[in-house]
Amino acid sequence: MAQSVTLFEDTPLELVLGGMLSPINIAYQTYGTLNADKSNAVLLCHALTGDAEPYYAAPADKGWWQDFIGSGLAFDTDKYFFICSNVLGGCKGTTGPASINPMTNQPYGSQFPVITVQDIVRVQKALIDYLEIPHLKAVVGGSFGGMQATQWAIYYPDFVDNIVNLCSSLTLSAEAIGFNHVMRQAIINDPNFNGGDYYQGMAPDNGLKIARMLGMLTYRTDIQLAKAFGRETKQHTEVWGDYFQVESYLSYQGIKFLDRFDANSYLRLLRALDLYDPTLGFENEQAALSRIKANYTLVGVTSDQLFKQVDLHKSKQQLENSGVPVDFYEFHSNFGHDAFLVDYAFFEEMIKKGLAK
Amino acid sequence: MAQSVTLFEDTPLELVLGGMLSPINIAYQTYGTLNADKSNAVLLCHALTGDAEPYYAAPADKGWWQDFIGSGLAFDTDKYFFICSNVLGGCKGTTGPASINPMTNQPYGSQFPVITVQDIVRVQKALIDYLEIPHLKAVVGGSFGGMQATQWAIYYPDFVDNIVNLCSSLTLSAEAIGFNHVMRQAIINDPNFNGGDYYQGMAPDNGLKIARMLGMLTYRTDIQLAKAFGRETKQHTEVWGDYFQVESYLSYQGIKFLDRFDANSYLRLLRALDLYDPTLGFENEQAALSRIKANYTLVGVTSDQLFKQVDLHKSKQQLENSGVPVDFYEFHSNFGHDAFLVDYAFFEEMIKKGLAK
Repeated sequence: MAQSVTLFEDTPLELVLGGMLSPINIAYQTYGTLNADKSNAVLLCHALTGDAEPYYAAPADKGWWQDFIGSGLAFDTDKYFFICSNVLGGCKGTTGPASINPMTNQPYGSQFPVITVQDIVRVQKALIDYLEIPHLKAVVGGSFGGMQATQWAIYYPDFVDNIVNLCSSLTLSAEAIGFNHVMRQAIINDPNFNGGDYYQGMAPDNGLKIARMLGMLTYRTDIQLAKAFGRETKQHTEVWGDYFQVESYLSYQGIKFLDRFDANSYLRLLRALDLYDPTLGFENEQAALSRIKANYTLVGVTSDQLFKQVDLHKSKQQLENSGVPVDFYEFHSNFGHDAFLVDYAFFEEMIKKGLAK
Repeated sequence: MAQSVTLFEDTPLELVLGGMLSPINIAYQTYGTLNADKSNAVLLCHALTGDAEPYYAAPADKGWWQDFIGSGLAFDTDKYFFICSNVLGGCKGTTGPASINPMTNQPYGSQFPVITVQDIVRVQKALIDYLEIPHLKAVVGGSFGGMQATQWAIYYPDFVDNIVNLCSSLTLSAEAIGFNHVMRQAIINDPNFNGGDYYQGMAPDNGLKIARMLGMLTYRTDIQLAKAFGRETKQHTEVWGDYFQVESYLSYQGIKFLDRFDANSYLRLLRALDLYDPTLGFENEQAALSRIKANYTLVGVTSDQLFKQVDLHKSKQQLENSGVPVDFYEFHSNFGHDAFLVDYAFFEEMIKKGLAK
């Protein structure tokens, strides 16, 4: 069970693209022990559909970084004090579209504002301040979490020693925005969506299921799906319906997702992914990126179909053009984009190095 | 305006996976002149959403291979007599789900049977017989059309001299089946779909639009979309809606598709793509592929995101394992899968060579 704190009660958060939120509940979890001089704190930033608990103590459940966190592991709980919080706009304990709007006593729904990575990071900073942590040894994130890590180094250059950005680029590609667009349309066109105000009735489950299935295809690789399913068909099945095993797998993933995610949150966070631009609020790219003082580690997977290598290479170049040296690693993994969640053997050393600088 | 003929009036077509159809209307078009000994006929097989008219004589319109067909071009109308027909199950003049079922005098809709590439090819063969063409110099197709070309060489090994298969593999990958699954679900879940019996009311336009947008993303490449749109936004627009130019482009493509395609046909043809297996009806792969006597040309594009190079390489190997020599070419094109429709400079020589053997 994640911990929780309510902030922005007296002073609302003014959102970067307009609007404000007050109060903001933040779900978070910590692992390891903060040392006496408070110099070993590391913030973990979750990806699009993650939550505040990358590791569950209960043996039956698995957190999204379950195998990465522990004594002697990539995220070494003997050395560091890890903090992870659910993002603003999410649906896992932090204020989001399904939360009660204190002005109406109804869920925000369609009234929830547009959220950016910048807003998410400012809420994380408020949590770190509340925890009385004066400095972060590192901010680490994969995918959407990597964008948060980058923004930390831009907003709070003296506060962070190390950034570790996994499978993510400075901005999202046109193609990836395109996939997000298709996912959004699937949700918005669901007959239950009702402009986002569906909390009194049926949720737009079919739309969210379709979106999740498409998302899964961009997180995986053709090689992995060929190995796992190939062209195998289900037994005793009709040609219409889930005839191939890969269809059955996707449908299962889509349905499983409905239990743990809210369509409005998914829409808001997808849009934050599209919109992320480190330049926002600064005169130009150079003005934003040159603020970074942290050591910057960037790790890419050559088979990543969502954050393609051409975009990671471009990000490396942009950072270096602004005077930010980048420790850049790339490797092949059949897991593609999801490698940062599952391919421990590859990431262990780079994460350890990136944290320890 | 395509020509048209009605066949299978007295003898219904017995479909490979069960069911029968009678009669079958076939829309087709021809280009060039059949020579005296009828030795210069070439069948062009269209891809998923193509039609019987790759070239339009009227200057205002453009066929899907408009720039490839003509005097001296890749498909040289001075040398060859080209025939192209709309596939069975389509919606461009050949019998499909929107056609009138003579048993009910209503559109087939949900009652239209499952169609395979094998059925499509048998209808094409009936057309060629009707046209009294005793032999084909070549069968050419890209993507779904490439599968048809392969099946021609298996079913009618003595009838065809040359197969030219562009951007297609012998079977569809698990990943591509996954994309088709997502597209199908978007259509099936549209509130207007009504199990396929929507011809009396509103069509499942939103679902078909979403499917088409996703299809477009698999036909194009990240490089091409980055060049064309990057992260450009539309002017005077809301963050919700088509905010980025790439979204506007996809939405436009999706809406444009509604004017020219029927959702039921799209579902049937997607499934035929998934199901295509040259082994169907034969004891094993070797028994099917070793029937091929035609010269076999296979052309792939390294950036193809739908028919990936790993699958084309595998197809080449499968054919060679069954004693079919393959002239294999691959090259890079920013256009990805759609290269075979637009990248004339790359394909001209290989098509000319492949036809002339």
